[in-house]
Amino acid sequence: MQTLNFLNSPLITHNFSNEEKEHISTYFTFEKHPKKATLLHGGKICKNLYFVNKGCLHLYFIDQNGTQRTTQFALENWWLTDFLNFPLQTTTEFYIDTVERSEVLRITTDQYNQLLSDHPHLEPYFRKTFEIGYGAALQRIKYMQSYTKEEMYLYFAEAFPHFVNRVPQYLLASFLGLTPEYLSELKKKNIS
Amino acid sequence: MQTLNFLNSPLITHNFSNEEKEHISTYFTFEKHPKKATLLHGGKICKNLYFVNKGCLHLYFIDQNGTQRTTQFALENWWLTDFLNFPLQTTTEFYIDTVERSEVLRITTDQYNQLLSDHPHLEPYFRKTFEIGYGAALQRIKYMQSYTKEEMYLYFAEAFPHFVNRVPQYLLASFLGLTPEYLSELKKKNIS
Repeated sequence: MQTLNFLNSPLITHNFSNEEKEHISTYFTFEKHPKKATLLHGGKICKNLYFVNKGCLHLYFIDQNGTQRTTQFALENWWLTDFLNFPLQTTTEFYIDTVERSEVLRITTDQYNQLLSDHPHLEPYFRKTFEIGYGAALQRIKYMQSYTKEEMYLYFAEAFPHFVNRVPQYLLASFLGLTPEYLSELKKKNIS
Repeated sequence: MQTLNFLNSPLITHNFSNEEKEHISTYFTFEKHPKKATLLHGGKICKNLYFVNKGCLHLYFIDQNGTQRTTQFALENWWLTDFLNFPLQTTTEFYIDTVERSEVLRITTDQYNQLLSDHPHLEPYFRKTFEIGYGAALQRIKYMQSYTKEEMYLYFAEAFPHFVNRVPQYLLASFLGLTPEYLSELKKKNIS
């Protein structure tokens, strides 16, 4: 049986039996990917939702200048897809790549719908997960509205030091909208 | 019985009986508010979730310069709260005001938890609603990363003309991070 780490989440309130867990695991495909593997390709149909068991993914797009811009990171225990196009199985503009060697659970739209219909006790878990995701995204928009890119870096460095140290600097720069060179200067100033 | 417009959503798949609908309505308080009424106050505990039956709400914060900055609008058939603090009943930095005379359904955190526990057939509706909300917020972050404020206005004017014409111009400016004067210039240029 695959390891379903999400069933250990504090957002899970139902007590799933071993038989149920085993059945739930059949909806997922367990995958190991090397660093920088592309799991979702811009311009293609978005038909998979990913859960990060180990490692890190990022959701990004290619801007008008041909530059990669990271919109969202997903570390362990996060779900990632293009949440607008995944339910509809429509074309996405987003890419998803692994940032590190990663172990993920993959589920297709059809399997996901079937899973929730067969195991309705999972509904509250996904509802609460997306409630938090939506709330965190609005909070991030608030930061983008109120902080300069420099202030945003200082905020992230203080609030999420582990994240800032773990993620490659060129991706952190892409996430914040800074050049890698400028981010490196900022980091030096912040340390000294 | 209160009008529960959300039960007519295409995201509702369960066929609720009239008795169920009547029972669901008992969890909500139906409220009519004049224009510019404050429903959520920054610095206070966030303990209500709102559904817009008629009218328009906006979620905003006060920035370092004392200026209101709109993070999210909610027109008819949208839910609005601080989705991070509402489940926890913790202090919010956000305000919610009516933009127009509005009719809303209000539900407290405790009532909401009770509603979903008593009527689990509502879970998929809320899960899908927040899936879309999360996806739309990530899409908006993508636009904030790729467009200048001017391009963002042109995008909104083309994609959501009804919204751009309905919302007061000073709030649209606050949402886009422009001064009302500059937005007015942009609109003139765009029309001519």
